[in-house]
Amino acid sequence: MNDAVLARDGSGLGGGGGTIDLLDELRQILNPRSVAVVGASSSPTKFGYFFTQCFVDMGFTRLYPVNPRETEVLGYRAYPTVRDIPDEVDLAFVVTPTEAVLPVVADCGAKGVKGIVIYTSGFAEKGAEGARLQRQVVEVARQHGSRLIGPNCVGIYAPKARLSYYPGMPKESGPVAMISQSGSLSVFLVWTAHCKGLRFNTVVSCGNEADLNAADFLEYFGADPEVEIIAAYLEGIKDGRRFLRLARDISRRKPIIAMKGGVTDRGGRAAGSHTGALAGSNKVWKAVFDQAGIVSVDSLEEMVDTLLAFTRVSFPGGPRVAIVSGPGGPAVLSADACAQEGLEVAELSEATKRQLAALMPAVGTSPDNPVDLGMGTVMNPSVYRPAIEALAADRNVDVILAIGSCDTSFGQVMVETRNAINRPLLVAGLLPPERFSEGYLYLTANGIAAYPEPRRAIRALAKLYRYGQRTS
Amino acid sequence: MNDAVLARDGSGLGGGGGTIDLLDELRQILNPRSVAVVGASSSPTKFGYFFTQCFVDMGFTRLYPVNPRETEVLGYRAYPTVRDIPDEVDLAFVVTPTEAVLPVVADCGAKGVKGIVIYTSGFAEKGAEGARLQRQVVEVARQHGSRLIGPNCVGIYAPKARLSYYPGMPKESGPVAMISQSGSLSVFLVWTAHCKGLRFNTVVSCGNEADLNAADFLEYFGADPEVEIIAAYLEGIKDGRRFLRLARDISRRKPIIAMKGGVTDRGGRAAGSHTGALAGSNKVWKAVFDQAGIVSVDSLEEMVDTLLAFTRVSFPGGPRVAIVSGPGGPAVLSADACAQEGLEVAELSEATKRQLAALMPAVGTSPDNPVDLGMGTVMNPSVYRPAIEALAADRNVDVILAIGSCDTSFGQVMVETRNAINRPLLVAGLLPPERFSEGYLYLTANGIAAYPEPRRAIRALAKLYRYGQRTS
Repeated sequence: MNDAVLARDGSGLGGGGGTIDLLDELRQILNPRSVAVVGASSSPTKFGYFFTQCFVDMGFTRLYPVNPRETEVLGYRAYPTVRDIPDEVDLAFVVTPTEAVLPVVADCGAKGVKGIVIYTSGFAEKGAEGARLQRQVVEVARQHGSRLIGPNCVGIYAPKARLSYYPGMPKESGPVAMISQSGSLSVFLVWTAHCKGLRFNTVVSCGNEADLNAADFLEYFGADPEVEIIAAYLEGIKDGRRFLRLARDISRRKPIIAMKGGVTDRGGRAAGSHTGALAGSNKVWKAVFDQAGIVSVDSLEEMVDTLLAFTRVSFPGGPRVAIVSGPGGPAVLSADACAQEGLEVAELSEATKRQLAALMPAVGTSPDNPVDLGMGTVMNPSVYRPAIEALAADRNVDVILAIGSCDTSFGQVMVETRNAINRPLLVAGLLPPERFSEGYLYLTANGIAAYPEPRRAIRALAKLYRYGQRTS
Repeated sequence: MNDAVLARDGSGLGGGGGTIDLLDELRQILNPRSVAVVGASSSPTKFGYFFTQCFVDMGFTRLYPVNPRETEVLGYRAYPTVRDIPDEVDLAFVVTPTEAVLPVVADCGAKGVKGIVIYTSGFAEKGAEGARLQRQVVEVARQHGSRLIGPNCVGIYAPKARLSYYPGMPKESGPVAMISQSGSLSVFLVWTAHCKGLRFNTVVSCGNEADLNAADFLEYFGADPEVEIIAAYLEGIKDGRRFLRLARDISRRKPIIAMKGGVTDRGGRAAGSHTGALAGSNKVWKAVFDQAGIVSVDSLEEMVDTLLAFTRVSFPGGPRVAIVSGPGGPAVLSADACAQEGLEVAELSEATKRQLAALMPAVGTSPDNPVDLGMGTVMNPSVYRPAIEALAADRNVDVILAIGSCDTSFGQVMVETRNAINRPLLVAGLLPPERFSEGYLYLTANGIAAYPEPRRAIRALAKLYRYGQRTS
């Protein structure tokens, strides 16, 4: 383990007080009763409008815009300073110019604000001068006992707490938490996952991590019973030893799926100017993640695919996959993918092959794994059910991948079948969800993990299997 | 080169007569004036209905259903045999049971039918017995001078010729031709590509290739001036030496993008029962493709991404990529992807950096490559244009990747900008096209290659660059 990879400039407060205190502080910060937006604006081209709009969108009403040049923002009375707000303030969002941040943090501290989210950039990511200013901001917050998120971040998306950082974000809450060192990538992830029926509990964009850092949020999400799975996009890990120690413990009971950005020299340089992170090589990171029980993914698409498998599919008892398809080409690709991802194409029992053969025409089909039910399934998908039931009853089969047209009638057969068997089931389609959304929506609404390409289903399944082996 | 990989059972006719004859034959077969569907049915649960419906859907009207037990199919008069049709028949589609195929082919031969597409399965893919029957069918066709496509295939999709093998396929024609040893995968590819604005000239599903094979269609598409790019999904290559010799020649003037299925032992076994193909290892195939100038891809998604780059983006003069983004995270990932795919993150000139710095706020941005224009671009994307113009004027930049929200206003800026610069431009979005289709549709309708993830744009760009280097 390379200390240079894990340690950073040390300007942060680290974990602050004891663990119980931290969890309690974070619970209050991530579930604020009242919110101030410092730098709120009624001009639609300003960030001070954009971020205030996000809270209004989400229906957060105990909202206090702060700006000495405004009297009202988006229907809410504005106050000249945080200290003028005639209410307690749990959480303040700061969207002022860089030079105003220090006095604003002092104001927030004096007011007793518990958490301060600093959107504003121009700190450690901008060199030595910015790093000095960042240390001063942390020092002032510490004097008042306020905790900081950021600077140079977009803060918190938490639908149940009615917090958001992008207009029109989904309002439904769910079991996924996310720690992201990029706000924009988290927006992409939330929306892409949303299209597949995944819902988020809390997403934190932690920016430069001057005070609260990824390890703090990991500890909190690890302890939060509403969070069932934790996703992370990381460019560098401050407080790395603690992060990995926590991950080793939490990953035994709750999956952590992580993607590392800035894994090449040039990407690492970009990460440095993005969030001031010191990046390490991809190989090192994968080994580190693996040791800590973290499931690593290489792309955003793979992140969403993996979250889908972990939230929708139970752990397979072994690596033996039965593939059942109408069309033959995708069955070939699925068998390739199993071999490439370290899974096995199950050897079916003779009894199962006989049962399958009785279900299908003699030609244009195959009763051996990958099972090819033939093109007739396009017109009549009902044959998938007895075929999958036969596969689920075979002791040589641990998990089933069904490939079909992913229209609604196929989807209905899959939902019935899933309810009738005691083996994990994944589904892969053959038509793009951009155009043929109805069947995919039906499948996802009914809790089935459906992928637009078999290879992607197998890749996610392999990660699920390996994680399950590790924790069982 | 391994002969076992390239040669198969030798039951085929190979290239038949001379090349000119072949091209002429294929031109007539792929553009038939009249079509018979042998085994056509008026019962909606039968393939004989399914495939007839496809032609009706496409508006093919000189259509002759053949079935002794039908008088009319889908509004068209049915005939007892092909010989009873009171018209010349250019192309016959056979969807009868296996045992009826041989007499039907004899009938078609006697009628002077030029091409016979055999949908029916139960031939070489079903072992020695089927292989013998397949040889007999070929022999009969040869005696009459008829050419065969299949058996065990879905035939031809060619919107201009009004041929199709799946209901509701797109009716617009375009520059892409495809050779596919899986019909279902070709349906997936056509639809996925269609969602990105790509249109197909002709797709041939060639099944067991008893007579006409992938090499024949490659030669034809190579010579067809309407075809600008050739895609192929191959499980095995019969007539392999000729295929590769043709590819070496054609790929100098027309890109060939190919994916190999059945690249693992188990996938290869599945391919054997799918189309009777003898598969080879992935590494061998990639080397073989590379020698022949064929661009190889590993997944269906990568196939579509690559087709998009090759049809929408001009060849970059060098490997130096300028990345311009609003959000920072995707810029980091793009820089990683450049390094991983063998491209370079361009070193901008000092003059360009000064120009860029003047366009952006001092904080939350970066005027060095990857250029980070800051979060303000979400509200006002117009700044992308002068930034991209500055990058396009820098001699150190060969190609530009712009990353943004991919909404319509961003799309409009991209289209204007693309028209104003003389460097290739690709676009990557941050919101999933399943949900935010409008901006993507605007971009694709205006001929811009837009990807939902920067890594995918860079991967396709790397292939475009290498192909361009090879042919320039």
